[in-house]
Amino acid sequence: MNKQIILKSRPQGKPSLKDFETQEIDTPKKEGILLETKYISVDPYLRGRMRDEKSYIAPFEVGKPLESMIVSEVIDSKIEGFKKGDHVVGMLDWKKQQSHTGKDLRKIDADMAPLSAYLGVLGLTGLTAYLALDKIGNLKKGETLLVSGAAGAVGSVVSQIGKIKGCRVIGIAGSDEKIKHIKQKYGVDAGINYKTTGDINKAIKDACPDGVDVYFDNVGGEILDAALQNINKAARIINCGAISIYNETEVPTGPRPEGILIKKSALMQGFLVRDHVSDYERAITDLAGWLKSGQLHYDETIVEGFEKTPQAFIDIFEGKNMGKMLVKA
Amino acid sequence: MNKQIILKSRPQGKPSLKDFETQEIDTPKKEGILLETKYISVDPYLRGRMRDEKSYIAPFEVGKPLESMIVSEVIDSKIEGFKKGDHVVGMLDWKKQQSHTGKDLRKIDADMAPLSAYLGVLGLTGLTAYLALDKIGNLKKGETLLVSGAAGAVGSVVSQIGKIKGCRVIGIAGSDEKIKHIKQKYGVDAGINYKTTGDINKAIKDACPDGVDVYFDNVGGEILDAALQNINKAARIINCGAISIYNETEVPTGPRPEGILIKKSALMQGFLVRDHVSDYERAITDLAGWLKSGQLHYDETIVEGFEKTPQAFIDIFEGKNMGKMLVKA
Repeated sequence: MNKQIILKSRPQGKPSLKDFETQEIDTPKKEGILLETKYISVDPYLRGRMRDEKSYIAPFEVGKPLESMIVSEVIDSKIEGFKKGDHVVGMLDWKKQQSHTGKDLRKIDADMAPLSAYLGVLGLTGLTAYLALDKIGNLKKGETLLVSGAAGAVGSVVSQIGKIKGCRVIGIAGSDEKIKHIKQKYGVDAGINYKTTGDINKAIKDACPDGVDVYFDNVGGEILDAALQNINKAARIINCGAISIYNETEVPTGPRPEGILIKKSALMQGFLVRDHVSDYERAITDLAGWLKSGQLHYDETIVEGFEKTPQAFIDIFEGKNMGKMLVKA
Repeated sequence: MNKQIILKSRPQGKPSLKDFETQEIDTPKKEGILLETKYISVDPYLRGRMRDEKSYIAPFEVGKPLESMIVSEVIDSKIEGFKKGDHVVGMLDWKKQQSHTGKDLRKIDADMAPLSAYLGVLGLTGLTAYLALDKIGNLKKGETLLVSGAAGAVGSVVSQIGKIKGCRVIGIAGSDEKIKHIKQKYGVDAGINYKTTGDINKAIKDACPDGVDVYFDNVGGEILDAALQNINKAARIINCGAISIYNETEVPTGPRPEGILIKKSALMQGFLVRDHVSDYERAITDLAGWLKSGQLHYDETIVEGFEKTPQAFIDIFEGKNMGKMLVKA
């Protein structure tokens, strides 16, 4: 029996299990490539696609299956270039099995890295970290890099690239356990537990005595406000994610940034990895090289069971993941 | 008798005449170059320097004379390279007469352009417009350029450079008279009177049916919020000024921009012209060329009388100027 997970209703505020439904469906016809889902990526940005905004790129439809980056095994193929036993990664439906034309699927090598890595450090999250720093961050040796969501999928790669580039790296995360971990495993120089620190502005000031040159923002909201209070002249703020405001139903308000941006000649820039497809190969080459040389490490939180996918997605907003959050189907 | 204008007290909110004092002082000693003030530039950014923020660059001291860009005539000189009758421009004290070492003063040619132009279109305001567009705006032919403070000193030059670069230019200003003027004199394609338009968001949407590619912001606040609602993918927002919030005593709040910056892969960048001194010569050459060829026009609001300088400064915040606000001493 085949299964799919659909968007049953658009979440109001925080997503909940009732917004999703697992359905039994027919096994797919044997046409094109027949794929069996192995690993499903759940990511904060999917929350945006659950909104009904006409201007939003590719909003999900209610009643239709959701999609995200998925690693699948080819179980049958009528298409040249794909054969039984191959593994592929691509934007696929949340289905146990599905048929596909092969368009925009990338074959991956299970011998070079574990299959799950192609959804994380060698997938969109690794590419996001690498290319956002490459295109906006412009890190210089000796600079201070502040990273929020530092124990998350993107943040953990950002922190390590910061160290590879010779920066002082300060990580913000939501538990002492995570802080300890990012220092030990990723070489982060100092950490801030935003849940217990009290005055986050002061905590950043204390942890960054020379000010912040690059702030890699995965969270938005009040941590961004506090980071802005501590930026140096010509600072770069990378708006990569805003998990703290994704579940807001109204546009949240906060201190206006224009005054400080002018005063510091600083830049804030939004980053979407899909704008930079032509740079993927170069980035993957560097990331795979660092992985091989032992300069790059990663964590995964793997939830077992296809039907747990909605819960795994919801758990991201509670920070229950260390590193990349994945579902093993 | 010589005179100077000092900062008597730091303005709380909107500056008022009681924050300034004109004092009679001795005529300067005949050392270095003796200068007589001809034109004084009054600019919104001076409000920032009146704050007592340690982090602010060069805050004014209470009890000391203010300074801004001034065009002076050399009435006596003991320094090689400067002679009686020369005209110079530089950052000078608000004094009728003063002596000076000549350092950082630039000699100007009264035959090439009127003396006052060296404080406007060929001075810091022209340089600001040119270099902010050059460094951040990256205008492409056919794009839509939205400009706030479009009848002001910087905005009017920005609008005209937009037209020279082949863009559709929409100007925001505070009176129907100004709107009419910027269309007729600067070639702005459409104008928005923000004081009477009601829904500024809708007004921008109507005036920019293809969306906003570059927003040149001289005002900050709610007009910036509305502009952000109408930006295109990969838009550039130049934070050049924030006159609407300069007089606020607390950091004002507004809708958080990080969500839309991410969604649109857009950038917001603060611009300070003094970061780009090495580009001044190239910019002045282009600006003077456009002035000569008749592609660039400018307006001045000239207030007569040295002692009127504080009032002229205060009047900027009421939008009483058309183009560059100057005092003729």
